[in-house]
Amino acid sequence: MEQSEMRRILEQVRDGALGLDDAMLRIREAPYTEIGYASIDNHRQIRQGFAEVIYGAGKTKEQILGITLKMAENGVKTILITRMAPEKAAWVRDLLIKKAGLTCYYDPVPQTAIVGEMPEPSGRGSIVVASGGTSDMAVSEEAALTAEALGNHVIRLVDVGVSGLHRLLSHLDEIMSARVIIAVAGMEGALASVIAGLADCPVIAVPTSVGYGANFGGLSALLSMLNSCASGVSVVNIDNGFGAGYQAALINRAV
Amino acid sequence: MEQSEMRRILEQVRDGALGLDDAMLRIREAPYTEIGYASIDNHRQIRQGFAEVIYGAGKTKEQILGITLKMAENGVKTILITRMAPEKAAWVRDLLIKKAGLTCYYDPVPQTAIVGEMPEPSGRGSIVVASGGTSDMAVSEEAALTAEALGNHVIRLVDVGVSGLHRLLSHLDEIMSARVIIAVAGMEGALASVIAGLADCPVIAVPTSVGYGANFGGLSALLSMLNSCASGVSVVNIDNGFGAGYQAALINRAV
Amino acid sequence: MEQSEMRRILEQVRDGALGLDDAMLRIREAPYTEIGYASIDNHRQIRQGFAEVIYGAGKTKEQILGITLKMAENGVKTILITRMAPEKAAWVRDLLIKKAGLTCYYDPVPQTAIVGEMPEPSGRGSIVVASGGTSDMAVSEEAALTAEALGNHVIRLVDVGVSGLHRLLSHLDEIMSARVIIAVAGMEGALASVIAGLADCPVIAVPTSVGYGANFGGLSALLSMLNSCASGVSVVNIDNGFGAGYQAALINRAV
Amino acid sequence: MEQSEMRRILEQVRDGALGLDDAMLRIREAPYTEIGYASIDNHRQIRQGFAEVIYGAGKTKEQILGITLKMAENGVKTILITRMAPEKAAWVRDLLIKKAGLTCYYDPVPQTAIVGEMPEPSGRGSIVVASGGTSDMAVSEEAALTAEALGNHVIRLVDVGVSGLHRLLSHLDEIMSARVIIAVAGMEGALASVIAGLADCPVIAVPTSVGYGANFGGLSALLSMLNSCASGVSVVNIDNGFGAGYQAALINRAV
Amino acid sequence: MEQSEMRRILEQVRDGALGLDDAMLRIREAPYTEIGYASIDNHRQIRQGFAEVIYGAGKTKEQILGITLKMAENGVKTILITRMAPEKAAWVRDLLIKKAGLTCYYDPVPQTAIVGEMPEPSGRGSIVVASGGTSDMAVSEEAALTAEALGNHVIRLVDVGVSGLHRLLSHLDEIMSARVIIAVAGMEGALASVIAGLADCPVIAVPTSVGYGANFGGLSALLSMLNSCASGVSVVNIDNGFGAGYQAALINRAV
Amino acid sequence: MEQSEMRRILEQVRDGALGLDDAMLRIREAPYTEIGYASIDNHRQIRQGFAEVIYGAGKTKEQILGITLKMAENGVKTILITRMAPEKAAWVRDLLIKKAGLTCYYDPVPQTAIVGEMPEPSGRGSIVVASGGTSDMAVSEEAALTAEALGNHVIRLVDVGVSGLHRLLSHLDEIMSARVIIAVAGMEGALASVIAGLADCPVIAVPTSVGYGANFGGLSALLSMLNSCASGVSVVNIDNGFGAGYQAALINRAV
Amino acid sequence: MEQSEMRRILEQVRDGALGLDDAMLRIREAPYTEIGYASIDNHRQIRQGFAEVIYGAGKTKEQILGITLKMAENGVKTILITRMAPEKAAWVRDLLIKKAGLTCYYDPVPQTAIVGEMPEPSGRGSIVVASGGTSDMAVSEEAALTAEALGNHVIRLVDVGVSGLHRLLSHLDEIMSARVIIAVAGMEGALASVIAGLADCPVIAVPTSVGYGANFGGLSALLSMLNSCASGVSVVNIDNGFGAGYQAALINRAV
Amino acid sequence: MEQSEMRRILEQVRDGALGLDDAMLRIREAPYTEIGYASIDNHRQIRQGFAEVIYGAGKTKEQILGITLKMAENGVKTILITRMAPEKAAWVRDLLIKKAGLTCYYDPVPQTAIVGEMPEPSGRGSIVVASGGTSDMAVSEEAALTAEALGNHVIRLVDVGVSGLHRLLSHLDEIMSARVIIAVAGMEGALASVIAGLADCPVIAVPTSVGYGANFGGLSALLSMLNSCASGVSVVNIDNGFGAGYQAALINRAV
Repeated sequence: MEQSEMRRILEQVRDGALGLDDAMLRIREAPYTEIGYASIDNHRQIRQGFAEVIYGAGKTKEQILGITLKMAENGVKTILITRMAPEKAAWVRDLLIKKAGLTCYYDPVPQTAIVGEMPEPSGRGSIVVASGGTSDMAVSEEAALTAEALGNHVIRLVDVGVSGLHRLLSHLDEIMSARVIIAVAGMEGALASVIAGLADCPVIAVPTSVGYGANFGGLSALLSMLNSCASGVSVVNIDNGFGAGYQAALINRAV
Repeated sequence: MEQSEMRRILEQVRDGALGLDDAMLRIREAPYTEIGYASIDNHRQIRQGFAEVIYGAGKTKEQILGITLKMAENGVKTILITRMAPEKAAWVRDLLIKKAGLTCYYDPVPQTAIVGEMPEPSGRGSIVVASGGTSDMAVSEEAALTAEALGNHVIRLVDVGVSGLHRLLSHLDEIMSARVIIAVAGMEGALASVIAGLADCPVIAVPTSVGYGANFGGLSALLSMLNSCASGVSVVNIDNGFGAGYQAALINRAV
Repeated sequence: MEQSEMRRILEQVRDGALGLDDAMLRIREAPYTEIGYASIDNHRQIRQGFAEVIYGAGKTKEQILGITLKMAENGVKTILITRMAPEKAAWVRDLLIKKAGLTCYYDPVPQTAIVGEMPEPSGRGSIVVASGGTSDMAVSEEAALTAEALGNHVIRLVDVGVSGLHRLLSHLDEIMSARVIIAVAGMEGALASVIAGLADCPVIAVPTSVGYGANFGGLSALLSMLNSCASGVSVVNIDNGFGAGYQAALINRAV
Repeated sequence: MEQSEMRRILEQVRDGALGLDDAMLRIREAPYTEIGYASIDNHRQIRQGFAEVIYGAGKTKEQILGITLKMAENGVKTILITRMAPEKAAWVRDLLIKKAGLTCYYDPVPQTAIVGEMPEPSGRGSIVVASGGTSDMAVSEEAALTAEALGNHVIRLVDVGVSGLHRLLSHLDEIMSARVIIAVAGMEGALASVIAGLADCPVIAVPTSVGYGANFGGLSALLSMLNSCASGVSVVNIDNGFGAGYQAALINRAV
Repeated sequence: MEQSEMRRILEQVRDGALGLDDAMLRIREAPYTEIGYASIDNHRQIRQGFAEVIYGAGKTKEQILGITLKMAENGVKTILITRMAPEKAAWVRDLLIKKAGLTCYYDPVPQTAIVGEMPEPSGRGSIVVASGGTSDMAVSEEAALTAEALGNHVIRLVDVGVSGLHRLLSHLDEIMSARVIIAVAGMEGALASVIAGLADCPVIAVPTSVGYGANFGGLSALLSMLNSCASGVSVVNIDNGFGAGYQAALINRAV
Repeated sequence: MEQSEMRRILEQVRDGALGLDDAMLRIREAPYTEIGYASIDNHRQIRQGFAEVIYGAGKTKEQILGITLKMAENGVKTILITRMAPEKAAWVRDLLIKKAGLTCYYDPVPQTAIVGEMPEPSGRGSIVVASGGTSDMAVSEEAALTAEALGNHVIRLVDVGVSGLHRLLSHLDEIMSARVIIAVAGMEGALASVIAGLADCPVIAVPTSVGYGANFGGLSALLSMLNSCASGVSVVNIDNGFGAGYQAALINRAV
Repeated sequence: MEQSEMRRILEQVRDGALGLDDAMLRIREAPYTEIGYASIDNHRQIRQGFAEVIYGAGKTKEQILGITLKMAENGVKTILITRMAPEKAAWVRDLLIKKAGLTCYYDPVPQTAIVGEMPEPSGRGSIVVASGGTSDMAVSEEAALTAEALGNHVIRLVDVGVSGLHRLLSHLDEIMSARVIIAVAGMEGALASVIAGLADCPVIAVPTSVGYGANFGGLSALLSMLNSCASGVSVVNIDNGFGAGYQAALINRAV
Repeated sequence: MEQSEMRRILEQVRDGALGLDDAMLRIREAPYTEIGYASIDNHRQIRQGFAEVIYGAGKTKEQILGITLKMAENGVKTILITRMAPEKAAWVRDLLIKKAGLTCYYDPVPQTAIVGEMPEPSGRGSIVVASGGTSDMAVSEEAALTAEALGNHVIRLVDVGVSGLHRLLSHLDEIMSARVIIAVAGMEGALASVIAGLADCPVIAVPTSVGYGANFGGLSALLSMLNSCASGVSVVNIDNGFGAGYQAALINRAV
């Protein structure tokens, strides 16, 4: 409960405008206002200019459509939908236009959609998303689109794996001037360490499940990144492009 | 090699002030100038106001003393030494004063020393270091001292584990106004998720090896943090307080 | 063998009413009467008012139907069938009505059926089943239906994951007054620790395989729950909603 | 904050006995009263007749002494100290008598101490603590003493491992009449399954790290117990006798 | 090379009947006769009355048919085919009769076939195959049929899992009089320990992948069996019914 | 309880020579007679000529001495003590001679002692104990001494690891004529597969924790042996020489 | 940048033939020439006579065709395509002939294709590819074809698993005279150790995922090979036949 | 048995100079000559100019001295002793000089000794040993000294970890011209991939156990290296510097 609301209730009690039982009830009925963060929970994202996010994996197409329409009604300008299969996406896109005239951009590689207008970049600098190989693109694009939908300028460095170092070194300028870097790699995950050695900004490492044999579903890249010999690296879950994009946006926030 | 230095060498060659072989030598002797980022490697930390860091674990006390004295000679104002055992610390501290008049603050819990003056906070906001229990303090203090040595204002929330939620909730103000939060926890590592649900800044999670039984040396907290249901969490290696403090400083940097 | 039966046999031997060979045979032929628990095995569940349980996963629809009909003939009022796929359920339900006039409630989310009348709650208090997210519902509903079929009043708290703490805290009353709580969560499994910190009754934690990346099929939630920093938590197998519901019923039993 | 306290503050505000700022302050200064469970946190254990518990592992002997003395001053009748090494125990015991006339029972096998009077059993029934072998006694006694210190009647079945089934079966009476059973076993951990098949009360399984080879520090017993083919078993962490004793006490509570 | 053959060659050399080069060649060309076990490799199984075994999993139906026909031509009386899918089995069975008048018994549960006549039991005693539940039958029947095809009398104890001990104890006579026991169980795999505590013959334990959650594909039963607290247990690979049946036959061999 | 003893009690009851209460007591005092196998538990080993075994690891020297003396009083001719540290062994050996005139052979490599006379070999054939390297000798000698103490003729093949195949092949005769083979190996554990390919008797494989790096305390040898491509191999726990020797003795038993 | 080029630029600057800005630009614009290996990256394979390699797994048939045609235009004589599914292979083969008259050999077992002429063997000696069983052939043939496409003479030893040692020993000549040996095996992976004990050339071990039960997708063979007791063994990833063939070719290179 | 020796025996038999029984005996007494590789086992190393190797870890100082003296008597010029603790080394060195006038070079970091003269480099090219950090030196020096003792020219690149890429790139010349490269690294083990991307010779990767947290004793570097995205990398066991040096020598062998 906001301090000002609490004071108002107390004033009304003092002034006899509010009975004890009613005062008790109002305090009791707003259980999370009591600890002061519920409003933030509802409002902070819009306040920050952040898009709303729908995690599409476990939801039916009807649920996704319904939530999206309700958000749009509530005035959300940009809605990010992650992990939505192509069949669902086609159906949702059609009905968004028909029912509410909403445009929907969908990228089938990361299975990510953006509904409404892409926000203008408002962050402090640029976010570089570097990936080891083309097979990491489902993850790296999820990260990139997430960052863009949350109002960031994103630079993509594709296929800059460490087995051909010159590909990475030819992008030293972008790396040196980034505000945050997301390093996406499978297999041995060395990309994060090499980039963190070159850059002087925070590096968020995303291990991918790309690989075979003793890759163990991304475990090898995950352990590699956690054990990076370079300072300034932190790690998100395997294949969690969204998580990396979201945290990069928090870091790059101007406010 | 800085572009300006390269230009100076070329000017001297053009002007006949520098022979070809000497020019070749000067370029060659700075091997990393060849790829353009070496100067950064030498100078970026000082430029950023960052302290220099010595990882003390695998070094003899003589080596630690030697490196510290050399850095001080080179004008480094603040030197952070991590993982230095108390016996070494006592010896190093004595000789730093005797030989160079350098003061050395040493905290035996995280086994961390700071040589020279602690820099004034220069970051964008405050860094909160929250830890689950008193037994996590070796790690949380390593994080806190690292962040302070790198020029940040640090707020410590000790013993705010999730099994007594009120302890954490009584610090909502600090959590809500932080620029970065470092969440340090062992056992089930739930602290990171709960904090990330409350805060709207990046959370860096540090799993600790505190616990017993099926804790497996911190693995349980590590997996827990990687799988956080809250957005905005990234993770560093088990017990890696330094890594978290360092990345928090990168995130909080004003420039 | 019950002491009284043994005494009766000995009396008959003493009195010449029973020959040695017959006495030997009677002792030999009742191998489990000898250890006194066989009758319990057959009768205890009915005595306790507990429903009978059929684990449907490895059985054909014909087998499930046959066992159910036989139980019903034997006078079992409530029969719980777990892990029965929808196709089997439709077939079984039809034939139960046609052949024996038995009604069958089937919930496709946890794939659980209840045949016959749901028993009146007879436990000491209420059982709270709290789950982290809607994707945990297959497991949490298996737990809830199991507890109900075994004669308990169940309160469901859905989607009260720790990343939005206010959702959980708004149910403090139910948590504080429960006799047993079942905490169902995937991903980082922090729910169990947070609830156990709030409640003063036993908490049974059920890790679910919900999650991705380094979730490893529920291992991350399992380890998290085993390492809970809160007292009063015990854990059942991954996705084992039935096991949690069953133990909660044992704990809540009035006798 | 208790509803009655909140009402009293509101009454004072209404009656003009308390100014707005002071009212705000009193509510603000008791941050956890706001969510209504803090008083429980402080008082519930005493209300329940539960002893207070000190986890001795990470504390100095001075800290243990200090906390114990303060608790005794506050009127706590029984104080349980777990994981306290013998050297510390001797020192603490001496000073408790000298300084406060407090008696202290210490068992060096589970390294557990009980300060003050052992409470009268107040639970609903008896708690059976069964262990597979004598080498599991450090853990089983921690469980048993914990349950006793929390006001329960405890029956110990020592060395009833499944490789000699008759040892277990000769205690069928105790098993059949228990209200809760704690099954403590290392190696293959089969004890929990066998007991749960015999009993009709909740079984709390405690895997121990006793064993060698592919035991992996208790992992084999842990997995075995989680995968029990018998219903009614839940599991606590490896070697966590305290956790099992604590939850058994919660289950056996009369209220 | 058999000693007698070697002597014959030397005799021929001594007698001038064999030139040096030809002698060198003969020794050289029979590399494995040189170490004396090749004949055994070809003949020992027939000598022992053992059936020949075809591992069907990685072979086409044509390959299986071809090998079987060739073995039959060579006079093999009983041919065991393991892991042959039902479709292949139907095709192979038809053609064996049409082409060679060979009868083929096929059991679809363990996917095992026996071609030709089942041998008369020739072992020293009986082999008991005990399994924990009906879902372990694919594995237990593979073991039983293997042992029978290799000339043993087999007693099957189905569904004698430790959660209902009386089921097992009612078969004490068979257990006490067995020459070898194969204990097949999934989940917690406790069956092997309990049986080994009752019996005084070798117990071969077969963990199965039956179970769910933290069963990890049979790992929990495997570790459980390796860590058995009972003496006289050895273990084969997960689901390896054939391996257990084969070794049991070697143990039970009369010669 | 032996059937004959039971009959005797019943006869005495019939004849009035034994009162009901006394009869009840005698049956009751032998609790395991109730399920008919207890006498075996007490007597089978002596009947079989098997030595009694004391697992020395978790026992004090006083306990070991006491149990040994009592067994000797009861007429046990050969007593095997495993895992007894040298200090304890010296003390026990001295007192066994002083107090009871008992000789005690102690081998410090496997830390195994044999008290009393070594029994004459009574098994069906010889047991071969083959080990990969001299560093496996602690385990292989535990196996060999166990088998000898249980009445078997043992042939030791030391240092016959597969990296020098000729060492193994020079012992083909012993391998071909063994009744059971125990294959002890660390590192890659290939010895079991190679021997099982040469022999036609059961092979019991013992993985040892000898090795380094990714050996993981014997896990590499354990997995290797479980996955043997040769038929006729079963496996005991890591370093469990006793378990292998014991099962080999069961297999080789003449009766 | 090559030293000679750098000198030429400096000479031109000295001589006034090159302005400062242009000199700066030329150095800047060739970022990877600066470190001197880019040309190698482009040319070394052709220089070495090595075929070019396309990893087919993650590519569409159109992409594979396009890259192949472009390489052929560039004068590459032999192109190796690994992990190309049969459907893609048929389509690609057809169009290679139609569009460019290129022949394409495709082996469906390892799913490997070779486009163009197979090079004449140019290595120093022969490469032996030995595999444990026919089910390892997908991997062993990938290794063999890779080595052949890179200009080596390859000798295949199929089905020489250690459970029938004579099969391996009958090929001692090939093993003794090889320049490199690739040992491919699943299950317990013992083949590598046995071969390395026999040979005196480098052995590259390839664990395969062939096996079942506790094979864990090739982990058992992988650990086995890493822990080989024989010197001279190194290991590549599970099922990585290409990697082994490629390194064998590097080792056997004449230059 | 060497072909020439075999021929000599046959000649003597033919000529009547050797009786049949004696001939049989001579063949029998040299059991491994039977399979033709034993001579190689004894002689190949000297033939190749390779030093003999003693693995010092499990041996007493007396054993090490004895074996060394015997080898020296047999004419071995260079003897490599690995894993010999400093105390043993001092004692052995003293006595080697006193008893046999043998010089012994000992390096306490890798705990490796070389007795006798270091051989002249006889390999085809140079072997580069590159290590990530100074804490990897125990392993990298074991590799380097092994390669030198086996007759190779070794170039050491110390502390060239990927977090400071310029350190590595300044040694491009050595990397480009090596015949074999050994890449030694702990933590994330990325060094192997980066080097293999730069070099065109075989790279042998040695993971070290250097690191902390989720390093798991070298597992993270091991998995990283096995999953290298660069071609031409194979891996030896964790910390196995000797194994890498030995295989590098085999690869570099001139013959």
